[in-house]
Amino acid sequence: MREFELFIGNKNYSSWSFRPWIGLKHKNIPFKEELVPFDFENGNPKFKAFSPTVKVPVLKDNDLTVWESLAILEYAADAYPGAGLWPTDIAMRAKARSACSEMVSGFSALRNACPMNMRREPMPLAVDAAVRKDVARIVSLWRECLEASGGPFLFGDFTIADAMYAPVVSRFETFMLTDDKVALAYMDRMIALPAWQEWRAAALQESWIVAEDEV
Amino acid sequence: MREFELFIGNKNYSSWSFRPWIGLKHKNIPFKEELVPFDFENGNPKFKAFSPTVKVPVLKDNDLTVWESLAILEYAADAYPGAGLWPTDIAMRAKARSACSEMVSGFSALRNACPMNMRREPMPLAVDAAVRKDVARIVSLWRECLEASGGPFLFGDFTIADAMYAPVVSRFETFMLTDDKVALAYMDRMIALPAWQEWRAAALQESWIVAEDEV
Repeated sequence: MREFELFIGNKNYSSWSFRPWIGLKHKNIPFKEELVPFDFENGNPKFKAFSPTVKVPVLKDNDLTVWESLAILEYAADAYPGAGLWPTDIAMRAKARSACSEMVSGFSALRNACPMNMRREPMPLAVDAAVRKDVARIVSLWRECLEASGGPFLFGDFTIADAMYAPVVSRFETFMLTDDKVALAYMDRMIALPAWQEWRAAALQESWIVAEDEV
Repeated sequence: MREFELFIGNKNYSSWSFRPWIGLKHKNIPFKEELVPFDFENGNPKFKAFSPTVKVPVLKDNDLTVWESLAILEYAADAYPGAGLWPTDIAMRAKARSACSEMVSGFSALRNACPMNMRREPMPLAVDAAVRKDVARIVSLWRECLEASGGPFLFGDFTIADAMYAPVVSRFETFMLTDDKVALAYMDRMIALPAWQEWRAAALQESWIVAEDEV
């Protein structure tokens, strides 16, 4: 019997934790949440008990440990093949995985300049050319996916690709990084998800604060 | 009918190109190689014709474009389910994907300090603590995988995980970064693969040279 335990570090700032959490939650895949607060100053010593990389997120399923947000969601797709975590069409699935890998490996300018922070009042941020380039690429990718699939999510129904870009949606909202109407409408649909609202409500209640350059 | 075309930029330096190439080649998946030399000074203008990110590698299969090395190999696994690109066991597959994602998202100290360069004579390199930490983590991961699977590759037979770590094997060899016997024996098995030898022979013949900090 599956017994998913998802270890995360924080709800307001931990963009990597948000990805598998919203994917599992939106797809009604049962899991127990284990929030182990970050302790960056001391090198997150508590993470050593469950994480081979001393990072979050980590998923445990009985004796199995899975790490890295995309791998966790791939495992959930394998374990719950009926949940619709990936598009059923092989070509759309390939595009979705390309988009996910591009997120995992890239957009470092955006990630460094605009950390996820759900408690920050939305306000425009002056960003440099490298961030604007990341934003433009993401908007172009979203538009292409939404046009090809017809929406409402990147590949039609909500998939792992939407979960992987969820923190980007949050950053775009918080730092007001785009005025593209297709992108804004997609962001509205993501933010309206009950799973999103549940995560955000918890983030707003967290008392845990870090400097923005720490996460 | 499948018509795989793999676009790569270079054989000596392009570690991301090497990953899908060795995976497809070792598994005898037919593909046409399209080597389009890098032109960093001018922003790789020729890449725009085939790559949505203006990066390599890219796989085309008729009208479908797949980008990012891990997504390309996932698509190959979907398109050729009998090729054994992933472990058949769901738990081993989850671990293999975790290891692959960790490679895609991490080890930036190693990647920056020790670029893949098959033409460089193996010689030890003095590396800083961040690189040593990356090396130690990789050796520990390899040892754990090899012990759990029994080898000869990370998850038993050669899988996508071995393809994703192939450029790390090359870097470890070139810069003599480990003396761990289990790691060295694994590296020997990887380097002995006919696909590896074929790639390396081509890399040694390339006339194309870049400064080491460019790739």
